[in-house]
Amino acid sequence: MNRNDQQAYDRGTSLFSPDGRIYQVEYAREAVSRGAASIGVRTTEGVVLVGQNRMISPLMEAESVEKLHKLDDHLGAASAGHVADARRLVDYARRVAQGDRLRYGETVDVETLAKQVTDLIQENTQTGGTRPFGASLLLGGVDNGGQPRLFATDPSGTPNEWKAVAIGGDQQTIQEYLEEHYAEDLTLDEGVSLALEALAESTDAEDLGPDTVSVTTVAVEGGYRTLSADEIESRLAELDTADE
Amino acid sequence: MNRNDQQAYDRGTSLFSPDGRIYQVEYAREAVSRGAASIGVRTTEGVVLVGQNRMISPLMEAESVEKLHKLDDHLGAASAGHVADARRLVDYARRVAQGDRLRYGETVDVETLAKQVTDLIQENTQTGGTRPFGASLLLGGVDNGGQPRLFATDPSGTPNEWKAVAIGGDQQTIQEYLEEHYAEDLTLDEGVSLALEALAESTDAEDLGPDTVSVTTVAVEGGYRTLSADEIESRLAELDTADE
Amino acid sequence: MNRNDQQAYDRGTSLFSPDGRIYQVEYAREAVSRGAASIGVRTTEGVVLVGQNRMISPLMEAESVEKLHKLDDHLGAASAGHVADARRLVDYARRVAQGDRLRYGETVDVETLAKQVTDLIQENTQTGGTRPFGASLLLGGVDNGGQPRLFATDPSGTPNEWKAVAIGGDQQTIQEYLEEHYAEDLTLDEGVSLALEALAESTDAEDLGPDTVSVTTVAVEGGYRTLSADEIESRLAELDTADE
Amino acid sequence: MNRNDQQAYDRGTSLFSPDGRIYQVEYAREAVSRGAASIGVRTTEGVVLVGQNRMISPLMEAESVEKLHKLDDHLGAASAGHVADARRLVDYARRVAQGDRLRYGETVDVETLAKQVTDLIQENTQTGGTRPFGASLLLGGVDNGGQPRLFATDPSGTPNEWKAVAIGGDQQTIQEYLEEHYAEDLTLDEGVSLALEALAESTDAEDLGPDTVSVTTVAVEGGYRTLSADEIESRLAELDTADE
Amino acid sequence: MNRNDQQAYDRGTSLFSPDGRIYQVEYAREAVSRGAASIGVRTTEGVVLVGQNRMISPLMEAESVEKLHKLDDHLGAASAGHVADARRLVDYARRVAQGDRLRYGETVDVETLAKQVTDLIQENTQTGGTRPFGASLLLGGVDNGGQPRLFATDPSGTPNEWKAVAIGGDQQTIQEYLEEHYAEDLTLDEGVSLALEALAESTDAEDLGPDTVSVTTVAVEGGYRTLSADEIESRLAELDTADE
Amino acid sequence: MNRNDQQAYDRGTSLFSPDGRIYQVEYAREAVSRGAASIGVRTTEGVVLVGQNRMISPLMEAESVEKLHKLDDHLGAASAGHVADARRLVDYARRVAQGDRLRYGETVDVETLAKQVTDLIQENTQTGGTRPFGASLLLGGVDNGGQPRLFATDPSGTPNEWKAVAIGGDQQTIQEYLEEHYAEDLTLDEGVSLALEALAESTDAEDLGPDTVSVTTVAVEGGYRTLSADEIESRLAELDTADE
Amino acid sequence: MNRNDQQAYDRGTSLFSPDGRIYQVEYAREAVSRGAASIGVRTTEGVVLVGQNRMISPLMEAESVEKLHKLDDHLGAASAGHVADARRLVDYARRVAQGDRLRYGETVDVETLAKQVTDLIQENTQTGGTRPFGASLLLGGVDNGGQPRLFATDPSGTPNEWKAVAIGGDQQTIQEYLEEHYAEDLTLDEGVSLALEALAESTDAEDLGPDTVSVTTVAVEGGYRTLSADEIESRLAELDTADE
Repeated sequence: MNRNDQQAYDRGTSLFSPDGRIYQVEYAREAVSRGAASIGVRTTEGVVLVGQNRMISPLMEAESVEKLHKLDDHLGAASAGHVADARRLVDYARRVAQGDRLRYGETVDVETLAKQVTDLIQENTQTGGTRPFGASLLLGGVDNGGQPRLFATDPSGTPNEWKAVAIGGDQQTIQEYLEEHYAEDLTLDEGVSLALEALAESTDAEDLGPDTVSVTTVAVEGGYRTLSADEIESRLAELDTADE
Repeated sequence: MNRNDQQAYDRGTSLFSPDGRIYQVEYAREAVSRGAASIGVRTTEGVVLVGQNRMISPLMEAESVEKLHKLDDHLGAASAGHVADARRLVDYARRVAQGDRLRYGETVDVETLAKQVTDLIQENTQTGGTRPFGASLLLGGVDNGGQPRLFATDPSGTPNEWKAVAIGGDQQTIQEYLEEHYAEDLTLDEGVSLALEALAESTDAEDLGPDTVSVTTVAVEGGYRTLSADEIESRLAELDTADE
Repeated sequence: MNRNDQQAYDRGTSLFSPDGRIYQVEYAREAVSRGAASIGVRTTEGVVLVGQNRMISPLMEAESVEKLHKLDDHLGAASAGHVADARRLVDYARRVAQGDRLRYGETVDVETLAKQVTDLIQENTQTGGTRPFGASLLLGGVDNGGQPRLFATDPSGTPNEWKAVAIGGDQQTIQEYLEEHYAEDLTLDEGVSLALEALAESTDAEDLGPDTVSVTTVAVEGGYRTLSADEIESRLAELDTADE
Repeated sequence: MNRNDQQAYDRGTSLFSPDGRIYQVEYAREAVSRGAASIGVRTTEGVVLVGQNRMISPLMEAESVEKLHKLDDHLGAASAGHVADARRLVDYARRVAQGDRLRYGETVDVETLAKQVTDLIQENTQTGGTRPFGASLLLGGVDNGGQPRLFATDPSGTPNEWKAVAIGGDQQTIQEYLEEHYAEDLTLDEGVSLALEALAESTDAEDLGPDTVSVTTVAVEGGYRTLSADEIESRLAELDTADE
Repeated sequence: MNRNDQQAYDRGTSLFSPDGRIYQVEYAREAVSRGAASIGVRTTEGVVLVGQNRMISPLMEAESVEKLHKLDDHLGAASAGHVADARRLVDYARRVAQGDRLRYGETVDVETLAKQVTDLIQENTQTGGTRPFGASLLLGGVDNGGQPRLFATDPSGTPNEWKAVAIGGDQQTIQEYLEEHYAEDLTLDEGVSLALEALAESTDAEDLGPDTVSVTTVAVEGGYRTLSADEIESRLAELDTADE
Repeated sequence: MNRNDQQAYDRGTSLFSPDGRIYQVEYAREAVSRGAASIGVRTTEGVVLVGQNRMISPLMEAESVEKLHKLDDHLGAASAGHVADARRLVDYARRVAQGDRLRYGETVDVETLAKQVTDLIQENTQTGGTRPFGASLLLGGVDNGGQPRLFATDPSGTPNEWKAVAIGGDQQTIQEYLEEHYAEDLTLDEGVSLALEALAESTDAEDLGPDTVSVTTVAVEGGYRTLSADEIESRLAELDTADE
Repeated sequence: MNRNDQQAYDRGTSLFSPDGRIYQVEYAREAVSRGAASIGVRTTEGVVLVGQNRMISPLMEAESVEKLHKLDDHLGAASAGHVADARRLVDYARRVAQGDRLRYGETVDVETLAKQVTDLIQENTQTGGTRPFGASLLLGGVDNGGQPRLFATDPSGTPNEWKAVAIGGDQQTIQEYLEEHYAEDLTLDEGVSLALEALAESTDAEDLGPDTVSVTTVAVEGGYRTLSADEIESRLAELDTADE
């Protein structure tokens, strides 16, 4: 389909193109790939979430571009794409998690949460008068049964479960690295290493540091824990060593 | 009607073209045929549902692209098309089924369910401000009277009852195979074979495996049962043997 | 009015063209004529409804493409046109009929029902944000006074009473046959024959059979009755004999 | 104003053209003139309403294309134009008349009724999202004081009172005949003759008959009365005689 | 601004053109000038309202095209422009007047009424989804303090107070005559003469008669009074005499 | 930005142009500059408001084109621009002032009032379906603390406080005169002179008179006071003398 | 993407362009950069806010173009961009702050406030029928724990925390100066100097004065304090000295 024909169908979430595509959703995927990457790795001991932060000035506080968010004791999210849209999705996810805890006394399980978030996303792709969300989320956590789970949402509103997955910029390069090096029996610690190595595939070493990389683990034992700047520094240093 | 004329009428669900067509509904049918196939076969002992899953990465969990869904003890659904739309239709079908069980103490019968789902679909093809659902469902189950029933919905909102039917990609090839080989007196087991053989018509053998094919039976005796990976593997192996 | 001028006025139910036409309603009439035919014949003993079914696959259940519907003991409907729209109109007619029975203890009379259905249809041709219904209905029944009545609706929302009428594909050919051969003093049985003969005018004999033709009588004595496959087979056979 | 300029302003009831016209209202007037004619004549003894019916098939029941409607014992309506729109206006007028009888124990007077109907019509010419009514009504009756009154509505929503008036097809020819032959002291019987003569001006004698012409009188003494087919036949016969 | 540029801004009440104009309001003024004229003259003894009626057929009842309306004992209105719009404004004015009498026991004063009517008019020029009113009103009356007042509304929603004013067709010619001949100390009778003379400036004498001209006085002593056909005839006759 | 590009962004209050402008607001400013001027001068003793009236006919009552309005004992407004829009803003301001007096027993202070009025104006520049107000207001008064204050609103919804300011036609000429001749220690009387002198800069002396110029003072001692026609005449006469 | 293609996607907040951008948000950023600059500097003792005012006339009161606003005792805001939009955002922020104080007895912390303001901003970029806010805010204050915090919002609805930041016109020049000269251990006094020096980078010395520059400190000890004209004068004088 040429550009002119495409333009006939790409200005509304309530339109299919003659070949059955919804262009606004595909453009929202472009918005996701314009942002920095986020990575999730599921291990036997818990889920690892890694987010890359783009500092537009050294005077910016690194935490304020933070893309990893604690939703509950055993539940975290990483985002990619249009930042303001991502914030709204994370807020929604947190409200769902906290609502469940309030009502039922225990946290929502990761799959249910992923489905509720994608329900909201899907509605924005079918009802007119609004645009799709230009953001994707990784939702990682430990279910009440002690099972680590990792889900990714996309702008069409589809939830998928993953062993390891990347969203955002350089997604393809990072995903290929994950596919090559993932193992089912990773420890949490090995999961952190795998995620950082994958990120290093798409980014120059000098651009990786405690300010631009965030790491969180959601462990069966210990729950949501954010790695300190020192820990990140030391893990990145190990990478360089390993590289040589 | 040439392309320019067509474009005058294809950007709204609330428009007929001069020849009495609703193009957005036809484009939604294209969306269905872009997805992987799902197959339903009605036998004397129950209904067989087979879904083909497209794994976009080996790190994806196969269940999360699952297209077969249990709606109730004797009621299942298979979907094809735009995944996020299909999820919304399946959720709606499940809510209808569960609502009936709650209110009347027994499950909705398959035909009534199919009609309620297509009512929702039809509304989205007539009222402005929304697009049609780009997904089709197979609804298979056993009525309270013990009768196996199989219905398919389409994006216009028409429910049809079938002995055996395919929706989604390669629909035509698979349907022709079913028409040639279907028999009224199939056992459930023969029904599974027929569905897998039909699927094999449109897919290379190496692309068929427990990760990419799901099989469910909704039997008069035994209700909703998902075949294990081993069972699927062995059934697919039999196909190869039979092929030779 | 040439095509370009026409296109200036044909994309909205809330628009008249300079010559006082509502094109969307005329296009909806096209949608009706794209479907298979339905025929109604009023006799002294009751009303005959005949519907032609288009089977798109031998694996489809004939009843599920059924275009004849029982609304109440002495009230039936036949449809033509866009199937999903027709279903919604039939559902509406059934709700009206059942609502009246509930409220007043007796069935709505056929004329009142036809007017309520066309009120709904007319609204969809005047209010923006929706399209007209691309379907027509025949409503046939016996009034509480024992009088057989037959009405047809059209996409503009006009109800008309008929002695005998065809809607849908080949409408003109069939209607002409009816006009030539209709008699005021037909028995119900003769009415069935007339309807089937008229249908045979527009369809090859081999395309007529119990799967593709449905016949219902709504009789003063006996109410709504669907002819069995055997009865239809035998009636069609008589046609062939008579033909020779 | 040329056609291109006109098209800039004729697609919305909420738009004036630069020369202060509302084109959609003018196109609705075209819709009225596309229908068959209706005629009203006010006499000293009551009001005469005559409607011309267009039978599209001899199998159609004449009453179902009837354009004369009893609203109450001393109140009748005749319509012209888009049939489905006219039905809605007649229904509205009837509801107003019956509502008044219910609330006040006596019928609404003709002028008040005409104003309420035109209020509804005017709204549809000013508020967006809907089209004007493509129909005109004659409202004729006897006020509670015993005074015969005759009003006509038009698609802009203006009520006018008349001694004698035609609406619909051939309006101009018929109106001119009425203007030439009307007299203030007509009896009801003479009024019927005048109306039929006027109609005969625009229609071939062979196209006039009990099936295609309806006549109603709303008399001070006797109220709403529909002439029988025999009466109409005999009145039309007199015309022919008079003609010679 | 040329025609093409103008068309970019003239299709919505919610749009300013680059030179700060609202074209739909200006087009509505055109609609006013397409109608017949109405004239108001304020005298020391009360207000004179004169309306010119356009009879489109001699069979039309003159009162039904009447443009002068009693709103209350000491309050009258004259209209010009799109008749159906004018009716709605007059109805609104009457409801305001009667509402005030009900609530406060006395009539609204003329200025307050004019402001309430123009509030409604202004809203229709700012909020989307509707068009301006294509009509102007003269509102003349005697305030509770015994002061004669005369206001005119226009399609932008501005109320202005006048000593003597014309609206509608030939407004300019008539207004110029009024400006030349108005005197502050006119009696009511002289006011009637002035208004009729002004009207005669723009209309041939033979087109002026009791059927085409209406005159009402709203006097401090006597309130709302409509001149009889005889009175109008005699006043017009005096004009002719005076002319010679 | 050329005209064609500009037209892509200037038809909606809910649109920014690529260079960050909201054209509809800028066009509304044009509407303001099409009206006659209003001037405000703040002195040590109170605020002076002067309005220029455009009489379109000598038969018009000067007060009815009055642009100075008393809002409360110590609060006045002067307007410029589209008259009907200005009226609505003045009405809104008056309602705010009176509401506050009712609720709190004392008048709103001028700054708060200006902010509430501009809140309404801003909303009309951001929400779709409506156009901006094509009018500006001067709000002058004495706060409860005895402080004279003068604010101006503009079509974007920005309130600014001024020592002396002009709005409407010839704004630039008048403002320059004010900037040259304003002094902080003006008496109220000198303020009136300054405002009239400034107005005389942009208007021929013969066009200035009691009918076309209005003057109001809102004084710390004495509150809102409108100068009589005689006073205005004499003040304008002084100007001429001073001029020589 | 060329200009024509861009125009296909830049007229709606509910549209993504094919490369995943939301043009209306980018144009709103242009609106921000059209205004004068505002600067925020976080020090160990509190936050410094500096705003540059554009006086369009010497008769304007400087405070009325004030861009620094007290939200609460320990909370201030500085704005840049479309003034009327900025006012609405500041009002919203103040309502949030005061609401929290009312409900919880203590002020909202700066981060929470920034998030609530950006939630409102984001909604205006996703829901149709409105435009984005063409304004950015700096929110500076001291949290209940005594921690100075400084956040900036942008038109996409993203909140970021900063050590020192500029918004509005000349943002880039000023930000670069800040990056070069900022130190973590600044005193409040040094922070004021840094902000003024940075502002002086982009503005001629003669354009800086107490009328065009405002300075506020929100200190851990002392809270919100606006520097007097004398203080600003003297600080600017020091700059000049330092410059030499």
